[in-house]
Amino acid sequence: MTNAPSQRTQVKRLPDRGKYDEATIHSILDEAYLAHIGIVEDGQPIVIPVLFARDGDSVLLHGSPASRTLRNAKNDGIRVCLTVTLVDGFVIARSGFHHSMNYRSVVVFGEAVPIVDESERWNALDLIVESLVPGQGEMVRPMTAKEVKGTMVLRLPLDEASAKIRTGPPGDDAEDYALPIWAGVIPITEVYGAPIPDPALEHDIPVPAHLENYERPRG
Amino acid sequence: MTNAPSQRTQVKRLPDRGKYDEATIHSILDEAYLAHIGIVEDGQPIVIPVLFARDGDSVLLHGSPASRTLRNAKNDGIRVCLTVTLVDGFVIARSGFHHSMNYRSVVVFGEAVPIVDESERWNALDLIVESLVPGQGEMVRPMTAKEVKGTMVLRLPLDEASAKIRTGPPGDDAEDYALPIWAGVIPITEVYGAPIPDPALEHDIPVPAHLENYERPRG
Repeated sequence: MTNAPSQRTQVKRLPDRGKYDEATIHSILDEAYLAHIGIVEDGQPIVIPVLFARDGDSVLLHGSPASRTLRNAKNDGIRVCLTVTLVDGFVIARSGFHHSMNYRSVVVFGEAVPIVDESERWNALDLIVESLVPGQGEMVRPMTAKEVKGTMVLRLPLDEASAKIRTGPPGDDAEDYALPIWAGVIPITEVYGAPIPDPALEHDIPVPAHLENYERPRG
Repeated sequence: MTNAPSQRTQVKRLPDRGKYDEATIHSILDEAYLAHIGIVEDGQPIVIPVLFARDGDSVLLHGSPASRTLRNAKNDGIRVCLTVTLVDGFVIARSGFHHSMNYRSVVVFGEAVPIVDESERWNALDLIVESLVPGQGEMVRPMTAKEVKGTMVLRLPLDEASAKIRTGPPGDDAEDYALPIWAGVIPITEVYGAPIPDPALEHDIPVPAHLENYERPRG
């Protein structure tokens, strides 16, 4: 992890919102599970939602959902930009101009490289499931060699990553604070509801505790 | 709106998940407020979170949050991919392999063109605020000419847009349904909490009703 930001990860606008320390970047990535990954295909930008998991100093990407593009990745990798955004609130200002969003985001530039080694890929797939839903790894039927063979997993190092965070009340123009207009923040939270059993469930199995009380780590 | 998908908007993987009708695309865009916009800069993909609003057959993008890239947009526009993802649940399967996500997403390809006309830009900024928080338009102090002059708004037509949707229980392998493993969906919802007043609020103003009961249109 580079603490001194490279030129392209340095936050150019409102540089006080830029945070580069590893702990901040990791905590945002660990709370999130969905990334938007950008690649270039014949000069055209393509942005795809993809589930991911952090594995130390890199993130693991399940290739299939983004197949048409990521599957073109050669063994030496494909150049990507991976962006993760956690929304924390709407910022309600006294002027339309200062309305904003409280959020925590991470942008990662780099080469996403397919994991060629099958046992490494096996571990990576296990880690993605376990990161998405901790406790699932030991519940599910074991993966098969065929499944591992047919699945692409890419690893993207976090060498060139930056975070951007906005928190707190609006930043209105000085003269607007005297106006009789309400201002503040509408907090936004993602909530995980009571698990809905598959109608095809053939056994009378209670919902496992790790699913009943599902939560993400909150940064 | 093209109902027949162009080659690059056609959903290649799991084509049954592809939905192209205008009503579906509009309802996803109207429920969402955050997009991830991808552009190409010197061959490098860059993906930035941005607030947006639908305006008929196009979307409006506030340029500032994405300034370093979108501000480079010439009057003839900048080639972008705008992706919007609403997450509805984690799909818990009997095998790790079939774990998935229920979601509704829209991908738009096109040229985002800066709105040059100032009165049109004025209306666009009003529309973005009102779309983000309906009712705010008439609460805030009016925009100033200086604010409008200093703000970039881009319009991206929805001519080349596609939606992708996954709903329902896991699709497990036929032989796995007999296993005594719980399967189903953990629903995910975004919740808007009680508004938090700005500590700098100088008047004893109650929270306006449109903020107290904030909701997004649900598709």
